[in-house]
Amino acid sequence: MPVFLDSTDSGFAAAFAALLTAKREDSVDVDDAVAAIIADVRARGDAALIDLTEKFDRLRLTPETLAFSAEEIEAECAKVPVAERDALELAAERIRAYHVRQMPEDAQWTDPEGAMLGWRWTPVSAAGLYVPGGLASYPSSVLMNAIPAQVAGVERLVICAPTPDGRANPLVLLAARLSGVETVYRLGGAQAIAALAYGTETVRPVDKITGPGNAFVAAAKRRVFGRVGIDMIAGPSEILVIADADNDPDWVAIDLLSQAEHDESAQSILITDDAGFGRAVAAAVEKRLETLERRAIAGASWRDYGAVVTVRDLAEAAELSNRVAPEHLELCVADPEALAARITHAGAIFLGQWTPEAIGDYIGGPNHVLPTARSARFSSGLSVMDFVKRTTLAKMTPAALRAIGPAAETLAISESLEAHGLSVRARLDKMNEVPE
Amino acid sequence: MPVFLDSTDSGFAAAFAALLTAKREDSVDVDDAVAAIIADVRARGDAALIDLTEKFDRLRLTPETLAFSAEEIEAECAKVPVAERDALELAAERIRAYHVRQMPEDAQWTDPEGAMLGWRWTPVSAAGLYVPGGLASYPSSVLMNAIPAQVAGVERLVICAPTPDGRANPLVLLAARLSGVETVYRLGGAQAIAALAYGTETVRPVDKITGPGNAFVAAAKRRVFGRVGIDMIAGPSEILVIADADNDPDWVAIDLLSQAEHDESAQSILITDDAGFGRAVAAAVEKRLETLERRAIAGASWRDYGAVVTVRDLAEAAELSNRVAPEHLELCVADPEALAARITHAGAIFLGQWTPEAIGDYIGGPNHVLPTARSARFSSGLSVMDFVKRTTLAKMTPAALRAIGPAAETLAISESLEAHGLSVRARLDKMNEVPE
Repeated sequence: MPVFLDSTDSGFAAAFAALLTAKREDSVDVDDAVAAIIADVRARGDAALIDLTEKFDRLRLTPETLAFSAEEIEAECAKVPVAERDALELAAERIRAYHVRQMPEDAQWTDPEGAMLGWRWTPVSAAGLYVPGGLASYPSSVLMNAIPAQVAGVERLVICAPTPDGRANPLVLLAARLSGVETVYRLGGAQAIAALAYGTETVRPVDKITGPGNAFVAAAKRRVFGRVGIDMIAGPSEILVIADADNDPDWVAIDLLSQAEHDESAQSILITDDAGFGRAVAAAVEKRLETLERRAIAGASWRDYGAVVTVRDLAEAAELSNRVAPEHLELCVADPEALAARITHAGAIFLGQWTPEAIGDYIGGPNHVLPTARSARFSSGLSVMDFVKRTTLAKMTPAALRAIGPAAETLAISESLEAHGLSVRARLDKMNEVPE
Repeated sequence: MPVFLDSTDSGFAAAFAALLTAKREDSVDVDDAVAAIIADVRARGDAALIDLTEKFDRLRLTPETLAFSAEEIEAECAKVPVAERDALELAAERIRAYHVRQMPEDAQWTDPEGAMLGWRWTPVSAAGLYVPGGLASYPSSVLMNAIPAQVAGVERLVICAPTPDGRANPLVLLAARLSGVETVYRLGGAQAIAALAYGTETVRPVDKITGPGNAFVAAAKRRVFGRVGIDMIAGPSEILVIADADNDPDWVAIDLLSQAEHDESAQSILITDDAGFGRAVAAAVEKRLETLERRAIAGASWRDYGAVVTVRDLAEAAELSNRVAPEHLELCVADPEALAARITHAGAIFLGQWTPEAIGDYIGGPNHVLPTARSARFSSGLSVMDFVKRTTLAKMTPAALRAIGPAAETLAISESLEAHGLSVRARLDKMNEVPE
C-alpha cells in the first residue's frame, strides 16, 4: 500500500518531510572496482577493453571489432519493422525541432566607455554517449542524448553500448544513425567510460560524456569528471501528478504506473484536492497492477514509495510540489497554465489531462533526460546547452582603459596582486604617447 | 627557466604534449577528514560548527555570532577607504551590466499538430557563496559570484567566509553588501560547506554552492554535489598570450606574471611567431621578477610551468591554443578579431594589446570565474545560467495526441514499457467520445 496523507492531519508536516527524505536507492559501493578498471584501461588500452568485455559481456572482441562496421549497422537497422522505424523517425524529427530552438546566441556590444564586450558559443568537439545494455537499452535515450549534441554542432559523436553475448539492439543502432552518430562501440561499464575519457589505441577520447548507466557507469563518470565533462548522475525516475476530481482515475493511475514500471526505486505521487478521487486512483492502480506486464516492479515501487496526498486546494498542491521538485509533473486540472505559474521547481511540466508523461519520454520534443532526486531545485534537463560552452570577450581601447583601468589597479593593490595592477599601470603610463 | 619550444623542432610534438599533460597540482588526500567533518556537522549542527571554528580559526563563536550582525557589517564597511569603495562600486556596476544580458528567455510555441511546447526559466531559491580567508580573500570574487546570482533572481544569498583569529576583510563585507548578500557567516572549510548543504539550527541550507576554496573546501563540494548544485572545482590559474613582435615585451611579461603571481602552480604560456620577441619577453619577465612583491610565488610558477613557444604563424598559434583550451587568452596581435575567429576553446578572450587580463579580473564586466585545467573544452565560466534552471513545458490537445500518440505507443511497446503505452492508448481510445 502506498502512503495516504492529508494536509489537514496533525502529523502531516512530519509525514511529508519523511516522504521527501526517504532514501530510495541503495548506493552499492563499487568505487574501488571502478578505480581498478579505469587504471587497467589507461595502462593496457585496447587489451584491457577486450579482456573486460570478455569477462563482463562474454564476448571476445578484437581491435577491429570494438566498433560496429558500417555493414553491421546496416544489417541491424534493416531488422527494424517499418512501424518502429517510422515512429523513431517522427520522434527524431520532433526532438530536433524542439532542440534547434535552444541554440544560444552570441552577443557583442560596445559600452559607454568604448569597451567592446560580449561572448561567443562554440560546440564541444567530441561527445560520447553511453547506452546501457539489457532491459534498459532504450533507443529513445539515444535520440535524447545524441540529437542535442548534433544540433549543438558537435563534430564527432560516438556511442558506447554493451552487447552482452553479442546481442545488439537494432533500434539503438537505428537511433544512432538517425542522430548523426559516427561510431558505435561494443563497450559497456566502467571500461567504456574510461575508454571515452582517456582513449586507447582504437578509441579516440572525447570531451564530454552523457547518458545513463548502472552503478559502475555512474561511479566511473564521477571519477573522470574534470578530465571530461559529464551530464548529471541520474537517480530513479519520479512522477508527481496534481489532479482535481474532474479526471478519469484510470488515466491518472496508468500515468503513475508509467514511472513505477521503470524501477522498484521509482516514485509516483498523486496530490489531489479530493480525497475520494485519491482513493479512486489508488483503486485503479491496484486494478491495473493485476495485469500489467511489469507488475512486480511497478507494484513494489508503488507499495514502497507511492503516495496519495490530499490537500485543501491547488495552491497548497503547488507548494508541496515545489518542495518535492519532481522530475516529471503532470497538471491534470481545469486551468493547468494558472497552476503551472505557481510551480518554481520541476524538470518538466505536462499540462492538462491530454498530456500523459509518456509523450515526453518519446515524441513530444522536450528532452526526457531530467533532474531527479529533488535536483530540479538547482539543475535542468539535458539540452543543447550541455554541448556548447561560452567564451567571454573583452576589448579595451586606450580611452576605455583610461576610464576604468585605475579602478582595476586600485582593486588589484587592495588584493595584494601587484602584477595585476602593474599590467594596467604600464599601459596607462604609456597612454600619453599614444594617439587615440 | 621556463621551457622554450619551437614548432619547427623535431621534438616539438612530444614536448608540447608534455606541456599539456604536466600535472601542476598535488592532490592532497583530505577526503576522509572532510567526510568526518561533514558527518559531525550533520550530527551536531551549530555545536560542531562552533568547535571546528575554534579548532581551525582560533575563534570561539556562539549561535548568535555565527553570522555578522548588521552593525558589525556597517562598522567593517566604514573602514574601507573611499578610493577602494568607489572602485568596488564601479566594478559591481559593470559586472551587473554585463550579466543582465545573460538572462535567458522563456519560449512557448504551438507546433503544426497543435501541441504547445516550450520552456521556462526560474531562479534557484537560495545560494551560498564560499569566500576563502587569508591571502586569497578576494572581494572581486564576491562580486563575481554574488552578482550573477542576484541578477538571476536568487531570493536568498548567503556567504561563508572564515575569519581566522577573528580578522574580517572589510572589502569582502562591502562587496557582499553591494551584491545583495543577506547573511555573512564567520565559517570556513569543509564545515562551512556542510552547513550550507545540510543546514544547522542557525544556518539554513541552500540549493547551490559556488566559490573557490582550498583542498578541504573542494573535497567537501564534491561530496555534497547532488544534494545541492555546485560550480566547477577550480584548479590553478592559467594564461596564454599570443603575441606578434609588434608588442612591448614588458607589457606581455607583466601579463604573464599577473597569473604566475596567483599561485606556484599557475601556468603562463607565451606563443609568438617571432623567436626574438619571445626571448625579449622572457628577459622582461626576469627583470620584473627582481622587484615583484610576490616574486617567490611568481618566479616558481614561471620557472616550473612557464613556456615560450615559437610558431610558424598565427594560424598555428591558434591551433596550439585550442589544444591548451586556456582559462585566459590574450590576443596581442594586429587583427585580434580575425585570430579570435580561429579560437574554439577558451574561457575568456582579451583582444588587443590594450586589454590586459587583469581588466577581466576586476572591472571589464565578464566573469572572472573561468574553466581551468583544459576544461574550457567542455565548460564555461560562471554566469547567470548557473543560478537558473529550465523547466520544459508540453501540452497536448486531443488532436495533437491523435497525431503523435500512436508513435509514442509504438516506441513504448518496443522498449517493453507497457504502462507508458497504455497511458497514451487509454486517451486515444477515449477520443471518439470527446468533441474537439
